[in-house]
Amino acid sequence: MKNAIGREIPERIGSRDVSLYQAAFATLRCDRKAARYQKGAPQHEDKVLHSIEAAIEATGLSDGMTISFHHCFRDGDFVINQVLDACAKKGLKDLRLFPTALFPAHAGVIDHIKAGVVSRIEGSMNGPVGAFVSQGGQLSEPAILRSHGGRWRAVEAGDVEIDVAFIAAPQADAYGNATGIHGKTPCGPIAFSAVDAQYAKHTVVITSDLAPYPVYPMEIQQGWVDYVVVVDEIGDPQNIASGTLVLTKSPTRLLIARMTADAVVHSGYFKDGFSFQGGAGGISLAATKYLGDEMEKAGIVGSFGMGGGTKMLVELLQRGLIRTILDGQAFDLDAVESLRVDPAHIAIDPGMYANYDSRGCATYQLDAAFLGATEVDLDFNVNVNTHSDGQLLHGIGGHQDVAAGAAMTMITIPALRGRIPVIVDAVTTVTTPGEVIDVIVTERGLAVNPAREDLKDRFLAAGLPVRELADIKAEVDAMIQPIRRPVFGDEVIAAIEWRDGSIIDVVRKVEGFE
Amino acid sequence: MKNAIGREIPERIGSRDVSLYQAAFATLRCDRKAARYQKGAPQHEDKVLHSIEAAIEATGLSDGMTISFHHCFRDGDFVINQVLDACAKKGLKDLRLFPTALFPAHAGVIDHIKAGVVSRIEGSMNGPVGAFVSQGGQLSEPAILRSHGGRWRAVEAGDVEIDVAFIAAPQADAYGNATGIHGKTPCGPIAFSAVDAQYAKHTVVITSDLAPYPVYPMEIQQGWVDYVVVVDEIGDPQNIASGTLVLTKSPTRLLIARMTADAVVHSGYFKDGFSFQGGAGGISLAATKYLGDEMEKAGIVGSFGMGGGTKMLVELLQRGLIRTILDGQAFDLDAVESLRVDPAHIAIDPGMYANYDSRGCATYQLDAAFLGATEVDLDFNVNVNTHSDGQLLHGIGGHQDVAAGAAMTMITIPALRGRIPVIVDAVTTVTTPGEVIDVIVTERGLAVNPAREDLKDRFLAAGLPVRELADIKAEVDAMIQPIRRPVFGDEVIAAIEWRDGSIIDVVRKVEGFE
Repeated sequence: MKNAIGREIPERIGSRDVSLYQAAFATLRCDRKAARYQKGAPQHEDKVLHSIEAAIEATGLSDGMTISFHHCFRDGDFVINQVLDACAKKGLKDLRLFPTALFPAHAGVIDHIKAGVVSRIEGSMNGPVGAFVSQGGQLSEPAILRSHGGRWRAVEAGDVEIDVAFIAAPQADAYGNATGIHGKTPCGPIAFSAVDAQYAKHTVVITSDLAPYPVYPMEIQQGWVDYVVVVDEIGDPQNIASGTLVLTKSPTRLLIARMTADAVVHSGYFKDGFSFQGGAGGISLAATKYLGDEMEKAGIVGSFGMGGGTKMLVELLQRGLIRTILDGQAFDLDAVESLRVDPAHIAIDPGMYANYDSRGCATYQLDAAFLGATEVDLDFNVNVNTHSDGQLLHGIGGHQDVAAGAAMTMITIPALRGRIPVIVDAVTTVTTPGEVIDVIVTERGLAVNPAREDLKDRFLAAGLPVRELADIKAEVDAMIQPIRRPVFGDEVIAAIEWRDGSIIDVVRKVEGFE
Repeated sequence: MKNAIGREIPERIGSRDVSLYQAAFATLRCDRKAARYQKGAPQHEDKVLHSIEAAIEATGLSDGMTISFHHCFRDGDFVINQVLDACAKKGLKDLRLFPTALFPAHAGVIDHIKAGVVSRIEGSMNGPVGAFVSQGGQLSEPAILRSHGGRWRAVEAGDVEIDVAFIAAPQADAYGNATGIHGKTPCGPIAFSAVDAQYAKHTVVITSDLAPYPVYPMEIQQGWVDYVVVVDEIGDPQNIASGTLVLTKSPTRLLIARMTADAVVHSGYFKDGFSFQGGAGGISLAATKYLGDEMEKAGIVGSFGMGGGTKMLVELLQRGLIRTILDGQAFDLDAVESLRVDPAHIAIDPGMYANYDSRGCATYQLDAAFLGATEVDLDFNVNVNTHSDGQLLHGIGGHQDVAAGAAMTMITIPALRGRIPVIVDAVTTVTTPGEVIDVIVTERGLAVNPAREDLKDRFLAAGLPVRELADIKAEVDAMIQPIRRPVFGDEVIAAIEWRDGSIIDVVRKVEGFE
């Protein structure tokens, strides 16, 4: 079957029936969400356990069950490995792993897949686990990738039933209240797990800092928590800023950032109350900085900047250039500190941030967003999951949610990465459909989605270097040797859900190269 | 049928089957909660309406439906009257009113009952509406009274389905984020309506202060809200402190407060990390003050004081005598101001505060509680709903929740009110069973529940005036003429739910007096 953007999707993916992607806002439902479990408790119950093994026993975790995790420590997380090692020691098999995201730190998952401890994964796989799964034949069902909002929706809708939610908590009290912004190793708010904690059959908080009652703010509430496990270490906060979070020094990238800020300034959205979200990439950070300077110059105060919270965003708040930050996860420790002291730096959960099945999420209030991509194509479709070699190496994050929500979504990319062109005829994988992409900004000029003539006119009037996307592509293609394209087999190794639960694309096994 | 504490309960109450009260923690369930509605929304939707009538039309509110409200403006609320007047104007009939509580300001409800606009009430009725309903024959079904936690549970369990939740919001933005601690007329956090907003088929925020996006803190989140109605006035915050919230000057009551504080000091619970909740009555406020002084003297720092937030509690926080306040509703404007500026003054919703169907609520962490009563009896049962004349004049509030949760629950009452004895053979109505009451403190001494010999020993060792409850009663009875007891008819005018949804007692129509 082909979905509405022409992607070939099998009728069934593993054991699940498929609903085909139709359009960005095709299916506004009014049926009911899944029912949560009532979990009564006696007074003054003691919830504290002293090992993960004890929690596995207490929750009755057994073969074939689903366990969930958040990724707020990003590449600094220790808890997923600790829990899986304990599961392996207990002889558990065939678990479904339901993390918000895996990072290179979780390369150990590969051994657990090989040993049969883990047989299914629903969640983002950044790096080695994704590369391993891309080889095909490793999991008993294709992996399912969802956006931040899509994952929240899936739990609320009952698409994924969690048996045991394990929640790394930088600080927790003995009754289960937990936060990520205090404690020995703060990582930022841990509200990614709030939906897991509310819907899971059993909820286990794992902390290295058991503090007196009541721990606050309560991203995780006592009423959702069955057990509190105290361990020595849960993660290394130095690694929450891993990877992409460095302000770029590349002149090409700074040029793109400059052009992005200029485009925002001339977009018609740039006025008092203006709002924006940048990603965590180097270009986005630089664009945020430039944009702040433009706001200061113009005397404009924004309503909110949305995060991942970063030092860059915190500085805008402190300079009075934005009234608030809406923060779903901290990308550095400056953001964590700001969350502690400034009530205008507001932690929000992914439901409020991005849930499709709600009466409106925060991304729907965005004026402008600047996001990254591994590839874009002439239909303005965006790929953030696979590389041009076909390997599944990245998660969706909030990409779909932000792009669908923002009034103007800009993809900020160099037209060429090394010898690899970024603008292609058709992206390897569609993460986010061209329907919700407005502008593509490259160092060779910016291209505007034909559906947004209004923007194109404004940019041209401002003297910005507006070009046809096909022209930029042709210019780049002429400079380089064609790259060897991957040859895909039939096996579907992962499905990419659109935020409403429909399938926008699948990722197939790479069998070789042209 | 008789329930476990010997109260005669009909097999059916109105149209509902009855589950009989068994014990304070009889029924720890693990089935599922009710499913919430999925409510999709398009991007950038405009939710603002300019009249309550428009909201009635937009939500499709019609005859026989259920509408809900919070009571955070207490006797200063304008919204219930405004909405009911609009419903009357629209010709609506037979509505079920599901407020958290009604106050004397809502006496207008009586006319709407007479006119058939309102035919059922589930919620507390403080004052005139309760007196009116007590006459019998006014409602099509008996009223149902629930505790704060019990009401939350009932919504989550699907016992009450809300068609339209109307939420008075001192400040809201156009997308539905709302708070009670900012705005033109702040009344304190409005999280009482959070469960209504999440479970109702339609949610309408009513505000007199439409502020730029995003309004925060978000006791009510945009994702739960269908419409935002802007009106001139929603309430008078001067009246949130109505009625009971004055520090007593009565020497009798000050003596009771003094004895209460002394009992806490010698209870064995009085040590670092100690926690307590006082009610909003004059004795409780004085006891809180005395207790603070004792804590200072002893160098003890409490973990939390729980509210209703009051100036008295805020002072303890500011003096460093408690680390935090857990605050379900503001009882005065000092508490509102403190909530704005001090992160250790934590707003919690009634689910976290008191929900029976959770893995533990905040009241379960209480060491000591001092609460009021209209009557107590020799089984230590407590009545807070009716007076000795049989009239239903008060709600339950958090009484059941706190008494069930606290390690030591003290009822602080004068043994005599005017010419009316407060200790009786059997209370007119059982609100809270003797099983969860530990100490009764009167100006004539304190009586300890026989189940708590440990406390009695400690109090005796400390030289406190411990007496038998029957002796205090006899002493008082000897001083006064017997009062004329009401004669009840068969008609059940209200049912009192225990916090798990079982029926602990019913209130019958008063037919006359002995």
